[in-house]
Amino acid sequence: MLSKAVIKYINSLQVKKYRNQHQAFVVEGAKSVIELLQSGFELQHVYVTESFEKEHSRLLSKGITYDVVSEADLVRAGTYASNNAALAVAHMRQLPTITIRPTDLVLALDDIRDPGNIGTIIRIADWYGIETIVCSETCADFYNPKVIAATMGSFTRMQVYYLNLENWLQQHATMHQIYGASLDGENIHQMKLKPQGIVVMGNEANGIRPEVARQINRLIKIPAFGHAESLNVATATAIIIDNFRRWEL
Amino acid sequence: MLSKAVIKYINSLQVKKYRNQHQAFVVEGAKSVIELLQSGFELQHVYVTESFEKEHSRLLSKGITYDVVSEADLVRAGTYASNNAALAVAHMRQLPTITIRPTDLVLALDDIRDPGNIGTIIRIADWYGIETIVCSETCADFYNPKVIAATMGSFTRMQVYYLNLENWLQQHATMHQIYGASLDGENIHQMKLKPQGIVVMGNEANGIRPEVARQINRLIKIPAFGHAESLNVATATAIIIDNFRRWEL
Repeated sequence: MLSKAVIKYINSLQVKKYRNQHQAFVVEGAKSVIELLQSGFELQHVYVTESFEKEHSRLLSKGITYDVVSEADLVRAGTYASNNAALAVAHMRQLPTITIRPTDLVLALDDIRDPGNIGTIIRIADWYGIETIVCSETCADFYNPKVIAATMGSFTRMQVYYLNLENWLQQHATMHQIYGASLDGENIHQMKLKPQGIVVMGNEANGIRPEVARQINRLIKIPAFGHAESLNVATATAIIIDNFRRWEL
Repeated sequence: MLSKAVIKYINSLQVKKYRNQHQAFVVEGAKSVIELLQSGFELQHVYVTESFEKEHSRLLSKGITYDVVSEADLVRAGTYASNNAALAVAHMRQLPTITIRPTDLVLALDDIRDPGNIGTIIRIADWYGIETIVCSETCADFYNPKVIAATMGSFTRMQVYYLNLENWLQQHATMHQIYGASLDGENIHQMKLKPQGIVVMGNEANGIRPEVARQINRLIKIPAFGHAESLNVATATAIIIDNFRRWEL
């Protein structure tokens, strides 16, 4: 059984301030923990149920230290309403200095505050072979448990940087095409988009902020055929990236 | 202030059994309630805050009966953690008998149980001008408050039918092309999809059930470029429908 102190510590990691203080974060559920154990992240603690231990004995035998606990303990320690598999605490990792090659396709997220959206976008980026995401400092935190959950394991493969987006785009404007999603943009169905450059996606309700929009040199839009006023930002990101990738051999 | 009896009644509509018994459902938040008031749905009760009343006096003046209540009352009655705008109870509507024209593009959802996914898919369908969605009886209920919320008002424009999907597809197999999303399908980037026919999307974890898959005559897939194992079903639906719509003039 997990001690009160351990549960209190893991609970505290739901808050960004304590995550930063301890340089640690929480990963929950079978799929996410399995991806974590196969990744380069340094582990702090791993807690598994008996059934998870049996099913993944080969994976766990590779020098991983873990404790077997009850489902009730996993629920108490984590954020899930049910968890019959596993929970892990891992160390945050140090990202290498950001470098963008001219042939890279990079996502830039401006003020996207919903953790579920950030997580879903990371999963979409991973599907489409994007390795780097640049976020304004007001975006939901990468290590937020809801972000981690929504990535379905893709957090292990994505480099997500938080920075002053306006300045960063300005520095990259001469070397890279900067696209921005906007209802006033060019119709992506009528373009043959080359999968290179930076694609800026804006806030769920307010779109891209003016100071960031000023750095964009090409506005693009998803054409509407019906009556919905907008699409969810993660949905829109998926459709746009698909349009960038569809012309590759 | 809302009486305990009224709050109890509205709360009860979170459960499908009581929604069916009363033939009524709940709509929450500014955007959704505004769309409801502009739609053909018959209203039972409308509750608004003072600020919503002021901001939307023109809309409310069109013969709508409503009560002004506090934000706290809206939260007690509904499912939102905060609601500074409105909540309405509306009557379920009777759908016309389902008819599919040869030129229609129709979505068929098999065993999609997450209300947020169903709601997001309805919003996507509305964006792309799809008017009819066919669901297996195990899909999340259209009138579930989480479905309604995720549609962002598009529930007012979509006809969503619940039926035995296997039988229904079998009846339509001679007249309509039936597509199914599958990891073993043809690459949609290499097809020029005509926006006609029925597109089947399957369960989040298990895909399309075998009995439904037997009715499909063309399997299609979204090509992967990275390492994510899958996409969220709403994300995948958006990408596939975009690929159906992109060749239109």
